[in-house]
Amino acid sequence: MRIEILNTGTELLLGSTANTHGTWIGQELVKLGLRVQRQTTVPDGQAILDSLRETSIRSDVVLVTGGLGPTSDDITREALAEVLGVEMIEDEAALRSLHEFFEKRNKPMVEANLKQAQNLVGADILPNNNGTAPGIYAPPRLGGDPKCAIFLLPGPPRELYPMFHDEVVPRLKALAGVDEIDNVQVLKFVGIGESDFHDQLDDELANIDGLEVGYCARLGEVDLRLIGPDAVIAQGRELTVSKFSEYLISDDGANLESVVVRELIKHGKTLTTAESCTGGLVASRLTDISGASSVFTHGFVSYSNEAKSQLIGVSTETLAAHGAVSEEVASEMAKGARLTSGSDFSISITGIAGPTGGTKDKPVGTVCFGIAGPKGIKTFREMHPRGRRDFKQQVSQRALDLVRRTLKSDQ
Amino acid sequence: MRIEILNTGTELLLGSTANTHGTWIGQELVKLGLRVQRQTTVPDGQAILDSLRETSIRSDVVLVTGGLGPTSDDITREALAEVLGVEMIEDEAALRSLHEFFEKRNKPMVEANLKQAQNLVGADILPNNNGTAPGIYAPPRLGGDPKCAIFLLPGPPRELYPMFHDEVVPRLKALAGVDEIDNVQVLKFVGIGESDFHDQLDDELANIDGLEVGYCARLGEVDLRLIGPDAVIAQGRELTVSKFSEYLISDDGANLESVVVRELIKHGKTLTTAESCTGGLVASRLTDISGASSVFTHGFVSYSNEAKSQLIGVSTETLAAHGAVSEEVASEMAKGARLTSGSDFSISITGIAGPTGGTKDKPVGTVCFGIAGPKGIKTFREMHPRGRRDFKQQVSQRALDLVRRTLKSDQ
Repeated sequence: MRIEILNTGTELLLGSTANTHGTWIGQELVKLGLRVQRQTTVPDGQAILDSLRETSIRSDVVLVTGGLGPTSDDITREALAEVLGVEMIEDEAALRSLHEFFEKRNKPMVEANLKQAQNLVGADILPNNNGTAPGIYAPPRLGGDPKCAIFLLPGPPRELYPMFHDEVVPRLKALAGVDEIDNVQVLKFVGIGESDFHDQLDDELANIDGLEVGYCARLGEVDLRLIGPDAVIAQGRELTVSKFSEYLISDDGANLESVVVRELIKHGKTLTTAESCTGGLVASRLTDISGASSVFTHGFVSYSNEAKSQLIGVSTETLAAHGAVSEEVASEMAKGARLTSGSDFSISITGIAGPTGGTKDKPVGTVCFGIAGPKGIKTFREMHPRGRRDFKQQVSQRALDLVRRTLKSDQ
Repeated sequence: MRIEILNTGTELLLGSTANTHGTWIGQELVKLGLRVQRQTTVPDGQAILDSLRETSIRSDVVLVTGGLGPTSDDITREALAEVLGVEMIEDEAALRSLHEFFEKRNKPMVEANLKQAQNLVGADILPNNNGTAPGIYAPPRLGGDPKCAIFLLPGPPRELYPMFHDEVVPRLKALAGVDEIDNVQVLKFVGIGESDFHDQLDDELANIDGLEVGYCARLGEVDLRLIGPDAVIAQGRELTVSKFSEYLISDDGANLESVVVRELIKHGKTLTTAESCTGGLVASRLTDISGASSVFTHGFVSYSNEAKSQLIGVSTETLAAHGAVSEEVASEMAKGARLTSGSDFSISITGIAGPTGGTKDKPVGTVCFGIAGPKGIKTFREMHPRGRRDFKQQVSQRALDLVRRTLKSDQ
């Protein structure tokens, strides 16, 4: 079933309002096993008419958002009537709802609102309990040609979301029929690049009949998306895991910080952080997860040398001999933070975020990590040369992955 | 000049990645006095070819994002070559950059990356200093027909944004001609809502001839965008500042953490953080700013009651009598963090992020702040009921604004 989204609204193209409809509707359709083929955003005005015509010729279903308001630039209803070649008619129930809406709020209804009670002959009114704009559903063949089902939906999310669930989903299910529905699985990997997948996996995945494969790379993270019937997904998954199991962090969409918190909870262990160059980002990511308080109690942001000595007992001799960015200091940071907090595990990070502070031996991007646990301390020295924010994000990702790997091997 | 955006990527239509390109590019073009006519999002694959053809026939400029990666679903380059009917050729400089990118990171370059050095005959390579995918600029008339300028740009924002500024903006200015370009000033406000502007300012701004006004509201922050000739912008600015000066944090695009670090440096003062519910986010935001190390040395993430007592000396009696989320505890956190670190100022935050942990007296969203400085300690109790991540962001925003206001009044 070919489904398109058509968003209307000049503000969306000026960037003054973020267009979140595509993301939200896309996710909701995936849950139904359906997919969006294309999303188009046009300004208010004539472009709505043109794009309605194009999308309805190309698709089986068009989901239109916006342009149902009371003002002069809201012309989606009229545009659809013209495209389908049908008349408009006042809907009594919609008019009654409008009156009730204003009575409930002790506000007078102005004449401009009257056009919101207009329906297309042969179409359904979709009630709106959260605003003045009812939706409209024009079933296929309403206008003869094109033979496409068209939904007109309000723009504000608090009106769109409930109407989508109550009115759109049941109609989409009926239109789609059960046998068309594919599944989707997202495998999340950390510590490996998109090109590694291409080199070692792409060709073999392409040989699996009926499997669609997609990638999405973020900083320090790759999502592999497998789409198809369950048995085909399982086959793709098995092949992938056989090559990259050590990098696989989740198969349910959970991000790295969730996985770390989940593993700590599972094993009944606690973690502390001793951060220099990441400046609290690792602690902040852990505490984004509800339930973090049961596994994370103390975090140290020891940004200066003095703080490293005072808070977590790094010796001034070690600092003087090796410099703050060294495996020796990372080791003492991890050791001191673990002791001071009484946590089971600790992760330390010390590095040079830049843009200043680099030297020939330790250029911008140099990072040392320490991870301490019941079995001792390990340290790592790596290069992550990037802009300051990306550096922090990438290094925090690496730190959390070191914790994940340690929890996996030390249990 | 008719400009369209074409976003490619199956993940955008599945809703697994939010499509923020339209918003960002829309805003950047508004600064140049230019407008987007349409935004289209298509999945990876054949749809890229079809939509490239359609958009390039309809427009003067097409900005394409995504599909320049090394994997098999990255076909934007090849699709454009086919649409324009030109050959592809390996670009020596691009190949050199690719090799350098991997050498710098001590990683081997795999064969899949080679296609990222491919250019179209007659097109420009747009260097990418933040990733492996260079952009491509196909000037109008490259392929005979269509006579449209086409930019192929990488999808990841950290690669797209700098390339847009360095490579796309100068070419757009040249294509548009100088006379189309107005000036723009962005005034950034914290602690006031978009509706306050509508209520108290909109009508008066609308009376200024030749001034275009736009708003962009983020969590705890509103940007007011003034577009027009310099004299008209100055008039709009004066009117705005006369009403909202206490909320104005910058007129040069600087965000709140930059402003705080800048003010601390200016006054030669230091700041420490004592965070409970924000879990290190305030420290992380401060250390996003280059130069933070001269004003920020220690940060405490005292997530548990024990950590509050052990690290920054909150008394167990105060915790027992008033609970961790209380102005009394916030006051002791601020006092203890300031003493322990020896900083001039300290900010403490303790609250209930939710979704669990709320009570009748202290529902989810309750936050207490303490701010200590040479003139003593002040505390605040507020409500910020939001989802967990939004709560942390909003509360960290409020904490930084308290520091900004204290620095302003205490000097």
